[in-house]
Amino acid sequence: MTKTLEQVAAAIGAEVVGDPQRLVEAVRPLESAGARDIAFISEESRKAPDLSKVEAAALIVGRKFDDPALPDSVDLLRVDAPKLAWALALEFLHPDPAPPFSGQSDAAFICDSAEVADDAIIGPGVFVGERAMIEAGVVLYPGTYVGSDVRIGQHTDIRANVTLYDHTVIGAHCLIHAGCVLGSDGFGFAVGPRGAHKVPHRGRCIIEDHCELGANCAIDRGALDDTIIKTGTKFDNLVHVAHNCHIGPHALFAGQVGLAGSATVGMGVQLGGQVGIGGHITVGDGTRVGGKSGVPRDAAPGSRLLGMPAMDQRVAARAFAIVAKLPELRAQLVAMEERLARLEGGQE
Amino acid sequence: MTKTLEQVAAAIGAEVVGDPQRLVEAVRPLESAGARDIAFISEESRKAPDLSKVEAAALIVGRKFDDPALPDSVDLLRVDAPKLAWALALEFLHPDPAPPFSGQSDAAFICDSAEVADDAIIGPGVFVGERAMIEAGVVLYPGTYVGSDVRIGQHTDIRANVTLYDHTVIGAHCLIHAGCVLGSDGFGFAVGPRGAHKVPHRGRCIIEDHCELGANCAIDRGALDDTIIKTGTKFDNLVHVAHNCHIGPHALFAGQVGLAGSATVGMGVQLGGQVGIGGHITVGDGTRVGGKSGVPRDAAPGSRLLGMPAMDQRVAARAFAIVAKLPELRAQLVAMEERLARLEGGQE
Amino acid sequence: MTKTLEQVAAAIGAEVVGDPQRLVEAVRPLESAGARDIAFISEESRKAPDLSKVEAAALIVGRKFDDPALPDSVDLLRVDAPKLAWALALEFLHPDPAPPFSGQSDAAFICDSAEVADDAIIGPGVFVGERAMIEAGVVLYPGTYVGSDVRIGQHTDIRANVTLYDHTVIGAHCLIHAGCVLGSDGFGFAVGPRGAHKVPHRGRCIIEDHCELGANCAIDRGALDDTIIKTGTKFDNLVHVAHNCHIGPHALFAGQVGLAGSATVGMGVQLGGQVGIGGHITVGDGTRVGGKSGVPRDAAPGSRLLGMPAMDQRVAARAFAIVAKLPELRAQLVAMEERLARLEGGQE
Repeated sequence: MTKTLEQVAAAIGAEVVGDPQRLVEAVRPLESAGARDIAFISEESRKAPDLSKVEAAALIVGRKFDDPALPDSVDLLRVDAPKLAWALALEFLHPDPAPPFSGQSDAAFICDSAEVADDAIIGPGVFVGERAMIEAGVVLYPGTYVGSDVRIGQHTDIRANVTLYDHTVIGAHCLIHAGCVLGSDGFGFAVGPRGAHKVPHRGRCIIEDHCELGANCAIDRGALDDTIIKTGTKFDNLVHVAHNCHIGPHALFAGQVGLAGSATVGMGVQLGGQVGIGGHITVGDGTRVGGKSGVPRDAAPGSRLLGMPAMDQRVAARAFAIVAKLPELRAQLVAMEERLARLEGGQE
Repeated sequence: MTKTLEQVAAAIGAEVVGDPQRLVEAVRPLESAGARDIAFISEESRKAPDLSKVEAAALIVGRKFDDPALPDSVDLLRVDAPKLAWALALEFLHPDPAPPFSGQSDAAFICDSAEVADDAIIGPGVFVGERAMIEAGVVLYPGTYVGSDVRIGQHTDIRANVTLYDHTVIGAHCLIHAGCVLGSDGFGFAVGPRGAHKVPHRGRCIIEDHCELGANCAIDRGALDDTIIKTGTKFDNLVHVAHNCHIGPHALFAGQVGLAGSATVGMGVQLGGQVGIGGHITVGDGTRVGGKSGVPRDAAPGSRLLGMPAMDQRVAARAFAIVAKLPELRAQLVAMEERLARLEGGQE
Repeated sequence: MTKTLEQVAAAIGAEVVGDPQRLVEAVRPLESAGARDIAFISEESRKAPDLSKVEAAALIVGRKFDDPALPDSVDLLRVDAPKLAWALALEFLHPDPAPPFSGQSDAAFICDSAEVADDAIIGPGVFVGERAMIEAGVVLYPGTYVGSDVRIGQHTDIRANVTLYDHTVIGAHCLIHAGCVLGSDGFGFAVGPRGAHKVPHRGRCIIEDHCELGANCAIDRGALDDTIIKTGTKFDNLVHVAHNCHIGPHALFAGQVGLAGSATVGMGVQLGGQVGIGGHITVGDGTRVGGKSGVPRDAAPGSRLLGMPAMDQRVAARAFAIVAKLPELRAQLVAMEERLARLEGGQE
């Protein structure tokens, strides 16, 4: 798809510094971008790039960007938020591929009582249960199972081999990646002398609008009340959410995060990979927890946590540094004790 | 479904204190239960509820319950084990919904040599392999793959998109949630100078009666012998069990637990979320391990463990409290060393 | 399948010590092997077996094996690498069962533009997208979704309910276990005041030759560049790999390992269960990381790491031993401080 810089600038809200008629075709990484490509300088890479070697047609940069190393041949697209503009440029030059099926497949199994919007796309091998409501623009990829009384909001995209248990509710503009299981029973048992008796789960799993769930996530339904993932929340792959959790809005969970039952995780909370949150815990708005941490207690809004059990991340950083030196610390203690005993002996 | 308290009491083994003919329809949470609802006081919530505000028709309580705050309008259902009775009340008033398909679907693929009980329910898109035996009352949800020589016992319920490798054996009255994979190859390789050569896996994955596996669990088959999950064992979501493990009976694993190969985890063991158990380890009966712990050594029956590596949980609690204070501890040590040196100097 | 020891020896590269015409049928565990079985002595079990009780027909042993306890009735198969020979004997006496379907199922959905080799086996309910290339000898089990422009190399075996997003590339002779999701979007967002805006992902997920992925793994595609799993790499179940990681060749990841974005994990690296690797980290060739560790920094080739954060494993072992003794250590420090104060008082 060939576009002018002017067209790209209009799509991403940029000011062109250079030739607005220059033609570009793709967004590429800074190191490999060529004369028809746009690039940007990621803040995430750990070493500063050598801008003198950039061969891209144009660079997406902040309003104040000014680096004399950049060759004059590289035009600029000035924006307020470069990463957002880069994402928009990707959408503009590399639009989502259409699914390789269309319409509502004859090889899908749709119960008569289900309500499916005319323009919803349903692939072969999909099952849609009783009274399910599938709104306009929804795409259901092959192998997806939609239980009875499920509701899926407009333009939500559900990838292959997803399972939605009965009564699950998914809002509009969500993206549910392949292999996710939403609304399965929570892990609740009445444990007695004759083993564990299952607690039936009759609450729902509710995913609000604009959420994205990574591959193979598992989100349980509530026992009586609902499990709720609020607007704009995004999960990476293999996330586990137990019954009755309330998450978000706009929370971000990295891969393999796990939440025990009835945890409340507030607005904009960011959890690193493999973090675990204890049951009945409240994690306040805006909290960030470093990867592999375990949070066994409530966390105040805006906390910065790390470790198992999680503590303030600056405290954790200092404590971790000393843990590796514990053998020396103990040796020092033993040596001091000997010196102390010698002094005490000298006093007698 | 409207029932009298007397009917509910008969179903859950309770004594009615109040009006046996009072009508109820649902089990609801204590806070939101209304005049047609039954509730109970969970021991799991972290703050005591305000019983003076209860509006439920009746409360499931223990034999000795007596709280003057509870309004007289609330009847009581006295039982020995309130949580078990609550689970039974849920089953009675909110029975399992029937699957949205029935019979044996024409769109299922069932090999001729498979033996399927007449009243087994097999959804569309299910595959049943050679010589598989599906007993009475089994339900196979859409998208499930049953390999050759698999056996599934009476009244076991297998949700959507489950994969059972050949020779897997599942007992009676089990519930296997969506996305589980049972009987895949263990992670066994002969590692040599030319890379890792696969060890063929010919043992089985055996799930005994009354087990429940959460969504997206992965349980490997054994290499030569079998992997065995014993009677009444329950797993939460995303649990990983490697080849040749023996688990249970009546073990409870929370979400994202992982077991390395040939681990033995005994009767009634409870593992918290994200716990890891090392290879060739024996965890004795009745042991409980706190969330996120790693167990690298055998654990005696009845152990209470926490931490990585796991230690006695009381020791761990004390040790964790000091870890956060290590910077102060070291500062204290340094200060003492200076005082000691001063004393030693004074002696010369 | 009945074979002579001579035939087995030819298949596994062994020298027979005993009767080459002796008949055997199976490979069995050392403890349960009988008069028609072959066994070997695993180095992985934690206690030395009692060889005087071996009843096997023959034992696979190293070139220098010599144990007088072994009954004379047990023949020997002498080899250089016993575990590799054992794996080969398993392949020889217990060959892979054929899938319970053959040819290309009429109930598979194969886009016209896909190129499928004549002898590829495609089960019912499989979906193959536009322009996908399926090479000779590939097996696709039921419920697998193959997106557009996917390429699958010769003799690769893809088990049930796997999802391959568009443009995923899988090499030859790979084994992808059930429930894996390859090529889903990475977890990339431009986080601003109005929430997280998705970064489109247009790189690929590339799996090179001779790789094996365990059940329910999730491997993301790259954002612009590719995620690459190099030749001979093997993953256990439930492994998470984020966008733009480069792994292998010949790496081994145990269950539930997780990698953050743009991590590079080198040749022959072995990661224990539940290990986490931070984003933009490089883990040098030949490194081994113990289970449950977290690696937040680059690791030099050949490192041996353990802990969270990971440190040299010998340091970690010593430090862990002291953590459990921190309460005593602190008590000792307090006692010394008192003695010190007493000495200081005495000097005045």
